[in-house]
Amino acid sequence: MDRLRARLGGVVFGGDYNPEQWPRDVWDEDVRLMKEAGVGMTTVGVFSWSVLEPQDGVFDFAWLDDVMDRMHGAGIAVDLATPNAAPPPWMAQSFPESMMVERDGTRMDTGSRGHFCPSSPVYRDRSRRIARALAERYGDHPALAMWHVGNEYHAQCFCDRCDERFRDWLQEKYGSLPELNRRWVTAVWSQQYSSWEQVHLPKPVRGRVNPARELDYSRFNSDLQLELFCHERDLLHAITPDVPVTTNFFQGHSLNDYHRWGAEVDVVSFDSYPDPGSPDAAPRAALHHDLMRSVGGGQPWLLLEQAAAGVSQWKRNYVKKPGRMRLDSYQSVARGADSVMFFQWRAAAAGQEKFHSAILPHGGTQSRSWREVSHLGNELPRISEVVGARTDADVAIVWDWENWWAVEGCFHPANDFSHAQVLLEHYTALWKRNIATDVVTLSSDLSRYKVLVVPNQYLVSAEQRAALRDFVEGGGHVLVSYFSGIVDQDDQVIAGGYPGGLRDVIGGHVLELSPMLPEDDVSIRAVGGQDLLPENFTGRANRWQDDLIAEGASVVAEYQGGYLDGVPAIVDHRLGAGRCVYLGTTLDEVSFADVLGGVLDGAGIAPVHAAPEGVEAAERVGDRQRYLFLLNHAGAPATVRLERAGTDVLTGTAWEAGQDLPIGPAGVVVLASDR
Amino acid sequence: MDRLRARLGGVVFGGDYNPEQWPRDVWDEDVRLMKEAGVGMTTVGVFSWSVLEPQDGVFDFAWLDDVMDRMHGAGIAVDLATPNAAPPPWMAQSFPESMMVERDGTRMDTGSRGHFCPSSPVYRDRSRRIARALAERYGDHPALAMWHVGNEYHAQCFCDRCDERFRDWLQEKYGSLPELNRRWVTAVWSQQYSSWEQVHLPKPVRGRVNPARELDYSRFNSDLQLELFCHERDLLHAITPDVPVTTNFFQGHSLNDYHRWGAEVDVVSFDSYPDPGSPDAAPRAALHHDLMRSVGGGQPWLLLEQAAAGVSQWKRNYVKKPGRMRLDSYQSVARGADSVMFFQWRAAAAGQEKFHSAILPHGGTQSRSWREVSHLGNELPRISEVVGARTDADVAIVWDWENWWAVEGCFHPANDFSHAQVLLEHYTALWKRNIATDVVTLSSDLSRYKVLVVPNQYLVSAEQRAALRDFVEGGGHVLVSYFSGIVDQDDQVIAGGYPGGLRDVIGGHVLELSPMLPEDDVSIRAVGGQDLLPENFTGRANRWQDDLIAEGASVVAEYQGGYLDGVPAIVDHRLGAGRCVYLGTTLDEVSFADVLGGVLDGAGIAPVHAAPEGVEAAERVGDRQRYLFLLNHAGAPATVRLERAGTDVLTGTAWEAGQDLPIGPAGVVVLASDR
Amino acid sequence: MDRLRARLGGVVFGGDYNPEQWPRDVWDEDVRLMKEAGVGMTTVGVFSWSVLEPQDGVFDFAWLDDVMDRMHGAGIAVDLATPNAAPPPWMAQSFPESMMVERDGTRMDTGSRGHFCPSSPVYRDRSRRIARALAERYGDHPALAMWHVGNEYHAQCFCDRCDERFRDWLQEKYGSLPELNRRWVTAVWSQQYSSWEQVHLPKPVRGRVNPARELDYSRFNSDLQLELFCHERDLLHAITPDVPVTTNFFQGHSLNDYHRWGAEVDVVSFDSYPDPGSPDAAPRAALHHDLMRSVGGGQPWLLLEQAAAGVSQWKRNYVKKPGRMRLDSYQSVARGADSVMFFQWRAAAAGQEKFHSAILPHGGTQSRSWREVSHLGNELPRISEVVGARTDADVAIVWDWENWWAVEGCFHPANDFSHAQVLLEHYTALWKRNIATDVVTLSSDLSRYKVLVVPNQYLVSAEQRAALRDFVEGGGHVLVSYFSGIVDQDDQVIAGGYPGGLRDVIGGHVLELSPMLPEDDVSIRAVGGQDLLPENFTGRANRWQDDLIAEGASVVAEYQGGYLDGVPAIVDHRLGAGRCVYLGTTLDEVSFADVLGGVLDGAGIAPVHAAPEGVEAAERVGDRQRYLFLLNHAGAPATVRLERAGTDVLTGTAWEAGQDLPIGPAGVVVLASDR
Repeated sequence: MDRLRARLGGVVFGGDYNPEQWPRDVWDEDVRLMKEAGVGMTTVGVFSWSVLEPQDGVFDFAWLDDVMDRMHGAGIAVDLATPNAAPPPWMAQSFPESMMVERDGTRMDTGSRGHFCPSSPVYRDRSRRIARALAERYGDHPALAMWHVGNEYHAQCFCDRCDERFRDWLQEKYGSLPELNRRWVTAVWSQQYSSWEQVHLPKPVRGRVNPARELDYSRFNSDLQLELFCHERDLLHAITPDVPVTTNFFQGHSLNDYHRWGAEVDVVSFDSYPDPGSPDAAPRAALHHDLMRSVGGGQPWLLLEQAAAGVSQWKRNYVKKPGRMRLDSYQSVARGADSVMFFQWRAAAAGQEKFHSAILPHGGTQSRSWREVSHLGNELPRISEVVGARTDADVAIVWDWENWWAVEGCFHPANDFSHAQVLLEHYTALWKRNIATDVVTLSSDLSRYKVLVVPNQYLVSAEQRAALRDFVEGGGHVLVSYFSGIVDQDDQVIAGGYPGGLRDVIGGHVLELSPMLPEDDVSIRAVGGQDLLPENFTGRANRWQDDLIAEGASVVAEYQGGYLDGVPAIVDHRLGAGRCVYLGTTLDEVSFADVLGGVLDGAGIAPVHAAPEGVEAAERVGDRQRYLFLLNHAGAPATVRLERAGTDVLTGTAWEAGQDLPIGPAGVVVLASDR
Repeated sequence: MDRLRARLGGVVFGGDYNPEQWPRDVWDEDVRLMKEAGVGMTTVGVFSWSVLEPQDGVFDFAWLDDVMDRMHGAGIAVDLATPNAAPPPWMAQSFPESMMVERDGTRMDTGSRGHFCPSSPVYRDRSRRIARALAERYGDHPALAMWHVGNEYHAQCFCDRCDERFRDWLQEKYGSLPELNRRWVTAVWSQQYSSWEQVHLPKPVRGRVNPARELDYSRFNSDLQLELFCHERDLLHAITPDVPVTTNFFQGHSLNDYHRWGAEVDVVSFDSYPDPGSPDAAPRAALHHDLMRSVGGGQPWLLLEQAAAGVSQWKRNYVKKPGRMRLDSYQSVARGADSVMFFQWRAAAAGQEKFHSAILPHGGTQSRSWREVSHLGNELPRISEVVGARTDADVAIVWDWENWWAVEGCFHPANDFSHAQVLLEHYTALWKRNIATDVVTLSSDLSRYKVLVVPNQYLVSAEQRAALRDFVEGGGHVLVSYFSGIVDQDDQVIAGGYPGGLRDVIGGHVLELSPMLPEDDVSIRAVGGQDLLPENFTGRANRWQDDLIAEGASVVAEYQGGYLDGVPAIVDHRLGAGRCVYLGTTLDEVSFADVLGGVLDGAGIAPVHAAPEGVEAAERVGDRQRYLFLLNHAGAPATVRLERAGTDVLTGTAWEAGQDLPIGPAGVVVLASDR
Repeated sequence: MDRLRARLGGVVFGGDYNPEQWPRDVWDEDVRLMKEAGVGMTTVGVFSWSVLEPQDGVFDFAWLDDVMDRMHGAGIAVDLATPNAAPPPWMAQSFPESMMVERDGTRMDTGSRGHFCPSSPVYRDRSRRIARALAERYGDHPALAMWHVGNEYHAQCFCDRCDERFRDWLQEKYGSLPELNRRWVTAVWSQQYSSWEQVHLPKPVRGRVNPARELDYSRFNSDLQLELFCHERDLLHAITPDVPVTTNFFQGHSLNDYHRWGAEVDVVSFDSYPDPGSPDAAPRAALHHDLMRSVGGGQPWLLLEQAAAGVSQWKRNYVKKPGRMRLDSYQSVARGADSVMFFQWRAAAAGQEKFHSAILPHGGTQSRSWREVSHLGNELPRISEVVGARTDADVAIVWDWENWWAVEGCFHPANDFSHAQVLLEHYTALWKRNIATDVVTLSSDLSRYKVLVVPNQYLVSAEQRAALRDFVEGGGHVLVSYFSGIVDQDDQVIAGGYPGGLRDVIGGHVLELSPMLPEDDVSIRAVGGQDLLPENFTGRANRWQDDLIAEGASVVAEYQGGYLDGVPAIVDHRLGAGRCVYLGTTLDEVSFADVLGGVLDGAGIAPVHAAPEGVEAAERVGDRQRYLFLLNHAGAPATVRLERAGTDVLTGTAWEAGQDLPIGPAGVVVLASDR
């Protein structure tokens, strides 16, 4: 990556380029306008398989040769794709078993994308064959900068071969059938297996399937697809050892455990599609940015796709209003991106995505969108020095795929529960305070953090339980919210009273899990003698109330009203050198911010920079300089009183500490200061 | 049953016990705590098939021997299950045709329960083989008290063999194809069959299928499953003639005609799951209790399952707040239950039902829930004398499965119609007045009743029509609501104007069936010269208005406003020695209560006992004593002025007639008086 | 048709007659009551296949002979059906491949109707065989007046044979695979075909299928069914050249392109089912009436089905309140119908449609419904002279099936878009002004119109684009609303900036397509110096805002508020002798009426007759007289000041110009005046 970074020489600007959809005279205009807009890299060939290999084993690289040469001629690097995301119609025709099968048994047809069976030997053979052909042909091409394997892996196939592969995966994991019977507790509902042939993928059942089986299927499916990626990565590494390999991750995607995937890519790449019509688009994007940075081990990541204006796949697709695209782009960089790229360069004339906006829209260079994007492409070189700079975070939030799969599994006390929503609510409180935050699991190295936020971590393994205890005893501060520590890695309730996995850490015992009626009118208030919250603190309880007793912890707040009147709502447990605060309900936004604030203050955590509401402050730290990004998401002008001197690298203006720096609506400041 | 009743010696307390999910050291604790809680009977083995018969024909009874012995050793009776509700994976593997097929053709996989094809010869053979093995092994075991066949029968299979069975059933019913063509009116839409091979289960069609065919399928499906039960019952009776056989019925379940099923069990059993989050949970439960008592011919029934706190299968699963579980339990007994049992003894650690509450919750004996349940187990012996006592009801409400299937069939004037809801609304008015009520069909023996409430009885056979007329002529009083008497048993509109089946009985003619717009503003008011309602009676019409004329009946109330202004809304028909009141609309709750009250008063029906709103009064009558149950569902303390003297058998306190008896929130009084 | 018209001698009254569902004694009553009600024609045999041909090749015409003779004896003409809409069970049994297959692969069963595969050779052979048999047997029968082929064609089959037929259709259309690849742009998402065997119907895919493929499938499917109709029509024409052939079209039906179908029938027939519970039932019905008249080339059409009171297939089926059925009937005649017929004569006793109202309801002749319908049947002869009279319209609205399919295709800026709703909103403004309007496509002969209204015409072919330009240059006035002219006939975005197909015509350029948030608060106001709108005009923008610039057009109104503040919302382009007004948003109803009014006034378009709100005025013009229909849809009496003298042919009353003619609620006046 250092070679790539050096080569690209700054924050990379560009996008997906699909010249095979256009005649050659359009290519001339493409190159001319790319240079005008400051394009430094294009992603080529993501969906080119049927054009590169029109028949099984018959290749046509001539057009791609031309494109590679044109890119090189224009000084534009190429992120060259292996086209495995969409096998051509000939594969479906000759090898129907290579097509994905849905849970209900329907086999997919061509005409869209992502329709392959990830276990299919033919699919695997042919996708590697074309990857190898590309690597051998373009490995030494001067335009080649990076490999882009596949596209947004998201398969879920229920065919007989995947069924077989699942069985293999289980045999590898459990060793013996009795062990599988024990871990899945097949004694429940007469599921005990007497032969491996009886074990299957979770196909349709009468009602809901054994949740342990569903959970293992989720693990298997993430592994199976990661295996696909790794095979191609290894093949490419073998032929072009110096070219980094990536694949694009995407938002809100539960199928793939990105913590595991992040460890396998040379650089993390992300497709960012915040919804301009959604009020929580900015914190949601920030959470994903922090996730991408974290799963890459803190390394900068690449923003590989975003929309210049609107997308087209939602019910209503709002455009990004003036300044929004630029603001979102700098937000990505502020939180660790070393590139600002778009899907796609030129808006398609046809197909499902023809109304997905592009750098170059259908209306050409006359549009506001082109003006804003090309302006950005020419502005980004001003912040070239930011490339490679990192982010220091003392706080981490837990987002663990295994828990995500398990906590949204079947038949819990509340089944209208969205873990992604709960996570976002916890994160938003951090984001509004401008707290630098990593995104981890309880299996991550926690030693670098002072505070850990643990939202509804239902599934906790024995190792994770020990790690959390070690963290607290070693001086860490933790905020845990309800329905955490309930089951082990096999989705079995941990014995000994809730939360079996964390009872010693939280210093409390949850006697009963109790969802609330929407009309329940319950508040909470601080008790005397605690030091987490102001004495007059009150808040509102929603959704859920633990029937909680303190066991070692001290009570911070208790319920008022309802049948748990007087029962502890928040308890505070000093354990070793640290502290664990446990929250047994969902609070309203303001009072949750107070509780989080109490934990952060107790741990001495300061925001990146003080800023008025709506102004995001994030920082990247380079070898010699630190870069404070101030991003105005509010609809009105804002002012930030600077805590230190620095120079806005976008304008060149120097600012002193204590000065009031004005930022217009959608405005961006990148203030460089000495470390 | 008398032997069983004598043996159990009181209101049985206990629950389902699934020791095969737990190691043996847990069993020791189980027995100890069962005795502490007062457990008298456990239901064992409901889902044990795969553990009892791990491979086809290979049995392992050792663990169950141990369990039976332990139960006996502790003085706990066993309700031993035949495990047919969940055949093991080996059956799915070796005999895939034994698995249920959904209407759309999807064959079910294992991993849940109830996934068998009820026609499958292999399934039938193997489920009887294990039932026989259990009967032969444990028939003489001293712990054995009752047989529990299967679990909540609810299959619906559309496989080829069920298709064949359906054809057989039709041949048996209709004799000839011309007769079937005539009864199904296959001349409509070109459905006339020329060969039996053309006749099928209602599989997916373009649009909706012939409703007569769908109706017969519902009858067939109830019969098919009842046949399964009866086969096992007969087998068990042959081996253990003295052991009663039951199967557990459940709530809101339209697939099985419990009036027919009730006649086949030795004792009716019921799984009661009122939703603590629903405001109509109490009357809904009461309606089902009355149904259970009625389908068992008035005999006491067994409450075989209920939840100690919350369940897990709904969107949100609320716990039972303090006192609620006890109140619900006594409500069951008040309405005829001779047992209070729970699903299940110990909360499961794994599987789909791990968050379904249990007598012994995950948190053990420290929880409120354990305290309340074990207190109840120790309190129930105080009302042992209630066992066997019956309920005298002068009023019956009609809940007929054939009508339920037909009235919710396709393409009626209103298709957002829920018969269960309409039924509940009618019943709730009876319940709020504390009227002792049986639940019958028009084919039941009606001679024992004075008043019959007939909600939306769309389907009426010629025999039922005659029975209803006889009932009225013989002095009975009837309240019938609209969309009754429309079709015969073949879902054919009865000729001669609506309601063809009842026109002579109601003394009116409905010229047109007319659903109302939600925004229609129509009221009704009493006319002069009638004696059903107060003169100043007014009410509000909703959902539906019959365009009705009186023919022999006198008009009680008419519409005001709307296009049927001045048309009769309620008519009153004196016929022979009786009376039929017909209601052509849905009234608001208060005015419906007035109409019902008018009918009851006219027939001289008094409540079980006068009580303030929210206090349920129900009575069981024993050989020498009568037991008045007063149950306070209101959230506040209440007072009941006693109509007779008696002794509260829960406290031993004696009360005089005329005294004000206070009952706290969720409070229960069981007042024994001489007959 | 002239022969038929002469024979029927007036506005035909009657309905579907299904005597095969009834015993013969009922037939006697039928004929008696038909004569009483004034029935002039019945539609017979629509669903009689299984009765006419109980086994493959075994026919039974005896009953139909009887029916035909009875009809003739009663002087009632017969619209005799070929029964292809519902093949009998023997076909499903012997030829399962003749049954329709849904998109997901489920094969339909019998028990409903319309369940055939339109490509099936067996189905085609057998349906023609029986059509031929009917034609040969009854071709000379004196009762035979018209052929009714099939019923409401609406198949969509995805079986292998349809798949093959689709491939054939594509080969015919595109000639070569490269051409198909080019027109479908299969380079997108790796869909390029290398062999025809790879090309399929749009079966289930991962996500959404190529929209060009889906669009061609819609064209193919309409063609395939039209082919079925044409085959039978040709067969009937060959045997009975003088008997007109029709098939019944129906409301809101997107599958069949009725503009193409209208050209193939001898007379257009329509089944009209306005929802009495819907506030926009009247304009929706009027739009369909105008469509039927227009697709038949301006010839009068036949109202072949409507409901006497309620239907049964919706969630709630409201009856037609007093006068409504008559009002709806005259509305049909006012807009071009030469018949008033009902589904059906006698309400069925069984089957899915037993609660669909009929001329003769279940309750017989005592009901309001019978009184109203039979009164109408006896009143219609008073307007016999209207038969054959036509409608002159200077205004046309565009409703193009190809656009309908395309504009509701996948992944547009707004995907909650209903073209039918948008069309209705535009049409309603015309209807409320009582503007005589035809319904056309841009491929119709536009030369006869002065004004064209073009709602969201997303798809515009090169020929259509030229036609529209010619229309304007030749002096036509056009109102076009947003999202028009975006793609060509292959669903490819027309290059050169939106709306590529119309940029020169509208004199503007849409830089960006921008859906609005529901909470966006944006108004529009007229600018100075324009002559379309009053100076103080303001309105409200909803759903969508084009980012529009004028290029040759002048600005009429601009946005106030929002991010497009000051951007043109309406532009006015003078081109040649004509004018094109372009509207870039959805306006509130009142201000849209103002804009439309500006366009109409500019073109000198007057209403049929001035009338107060709620009174519909429509006119038919005969050889010597013109007939003004005044229809009072308001709930209150209304008064119309007559613009000319005439005689109300319903009452015989003569009226002078300038007189105030009163019309009661639901009242109808048919004023005959000299031409």
